[in-house]
Amino acid sequence: MDGNVPDPKYGEKLRLVAEVLKAVEGPIYIATHVDPDGDAIGSSLGLYRALKALGKEARWVAEPPRFLRFLAQEEEYTPPLERLPLGATLVVLDSADPSRVAGVPLEGFVVNIDHHGTNPRFGHLAVVDPSKAATAEMVKDLIDLLGVAWTEEIATPVLTGILTDTGNFRFGNTTPEVLRKAAELLASGVRLSEITDRLQYRSPAYFKALAAVLATLGFHYGGLLVTAHLPEGLDLPEEDADGFVGVIRYAEGAVVAAYLRRRGEGVKVSLRSRGGVSAQNIALRLGGGGHVPAAGATLEGVDLEEAYRRLLEAVAEELRRAGYL
Amino acid sequence: MDGNVPDPKYGEKLRLVAEVLKAVEGPIYIATHVDPDGDAIGSSLGLYRALKALGKEARWVAEPPRFLRFLAQEEEYTPPLERLPLGATLVVLDSADPSRVAGVPLEGFVVNIDHHGTNPRFGHLAVVDPSKAATAEMVKDLIDLLGVAWTEEIATPVLTGILTDTGNFRFGNTTPEVLRKAAELLASGVRLSEITDRLQYRSPAYFKALAAVLATLGFHYGGLLVTAHLPEGLDLPEEDADGFVGVIRYAEGAVVAAYLRRRGEGVKVSLRSRGGVSAQNIALRLGGGGHVPAAGATLEGVDLEEAYRRLLEAVAEELRRAGYL
Repeated sequence: MDGNVPDPKYGEKLRLVAEVLKAVEGPIYIATHVDPDGDAIGSSLGLYRALKALGKEARWVAEPPRFLRFLAQEEEYTPPLERLPLGATLVVLDSADPSRVAGVPLEGFVVNIDHHGTNPRFGHLAVVDPSKAATAEMVKDLIDLLGVAWTEEIATPVLTGILTDTGNFRFGNTTPEVLRKAAELLASGVRLSEITDRLQYRSPAYFKALAAVLATLGFHYGGLLVTAHLPEGLDLPEEDADGFVGVIRYAEGAVVAAYLRRRGEGVKVSLRSRGGVSAQNIALRLGGGGHVPAAGATLEGVDLEEAYRRLLEAVAEELRRAGYL
Repeated sequence: MDGNVPDPKYGEKLRLVAEVLKAVEGPIYIATHVDPDGDAIGSSLGLYRALKALGKEARWVAEPPRFLRFLAQEEEYTPPLERLPLGATLVVLDSADPSRVAGVPLEGFVVNIDHHGTNPRFGHLAVVDPSKAATAEMVKDLIDLLGVAWTEEIATPVLTGILTDTGNFRFGNTTPEVLRKAAELLASGVRLSEITDRLQYRSPAYFKALAAVLATLGFHYGGLLVTAHLPEGLDLPEEDADGFVGVIRYAEGAVVAAYLRRRGEGVKVSLRSRGGVSAQNIALRLGGGGHVPAAGATLEGVDLEEAYRRLLEAVAEELRRAGYL
């Protein structure tokens, strides 16, 4: 984790937000970022339902991707708006970039709640705490402060946000605190196994693509590097096409996993590493960037063969640096 | 879950076991079942380390499968024994069947701790509670009662047992209590993401087999049934060959997943179902059995083609019963 320094005034700030949300007249709009993920949808829907339970006039402006639509009812959606009415409060969740807030203008009284360290703290009240695993974890705390009784309807999206941002309690951001909060949410009657099943559903096209990707599996440098690429001609949504590095990274013995796919006139390379090897170093050598365990690069104007050639060279350098070769 | 009725005397019985284990003279042997899984290894290794920390003369008799060997040190293993010395105490963990306890005879003072409802409560003291997600969850409670300070070394195998038996907190047995206990274990410094990564490592042969299995993917009855089989000629350990139904069951829209593989002179069919459809009913029609969401059958003396034919017939019957066809 980079920059996950807790905000020492987190509790104090969140308490003020809770008091203000209970006090404000006029409608409260809840919004999140474009291309919303599970945390964006889960945290915003959870807060929306909690405010409704409080009797507030709340509106949820969001368009969940297909795999998250099971969380909401048709009548809960508010379509995108050009302007907010006078006296509106806008709560923006999980949105590190104010220019990427979806469906609403940044107008009225703006409250910004997010766990991304890069959030510039826009808005009138900003609670930004990168030590939190998910914005949904912050919404859990906020709903507690609002004093709303936890129900399955409110807890389910909030827990979903935590589940998706922690990789179902697998990533390093899964703190004891996260598990304790999840335990409380679960106690409200959330059907955990049903949610986790639903989050894993994939289209027939995904499975066919996975088979095609695995058929390209290659091991290099005595198995230290595992590679695969997306063959051309597969009809696959963008959100699915990028995820395969998360499958091949579990190849035993490999300390680097690289997944390649054509993108425009170039090749996009997704990298994962472990065991003292830096995916970031490899990505930097390829003109990209990222974090030590997860990084990527886009090689412009090259074909797959050339991309593989450069990748193998960059990986060899990094394996030498790390003492493997 | 079948028969997961809690034992009302659970706490009382476990307290007595803790007192007795602290009091007994002579060595304490810890054993578990043959073909040990994560819960067998995790619960037994955790209790062994806790007893060592208490200063007891403890021995751990177990042979972890390859994917769990990272949990233990070479010097912690005690090889199988024909007899136990006079005055020995034997703690058997996670073993529903006394005839399948590995590496030790059932001799001396026998304590039986298990979460399988089918456990016949063998031994002198038996704590059997099928409401617990894992035997490791019971060992967490026992170590608390022993008053041993939690360290990373003790907490890691115990949490691993909970992780493997709950499908990494995905299955329905993940109760709020399980998450609270996991939070406490995590707070002892367990490196969660490292463990969950390691538990997901798969051999290159596994990935090649997965590609081959997915290449056989078939959708039937308008996508309600997804099927796949293991092509012949793949060199794959038994433990890997059976798991692929757990991959294809996430095909969107399918309410039945069936995975077939040759076994001896017949074909083994693994079934999963959801949405009001019973895998058990399908299995029963094929001469097998199991639970409603997960079941299986072995069709003797048939080839793949005939197995598919019978499967499709049995599934159609069940889909009609459930109102899908």
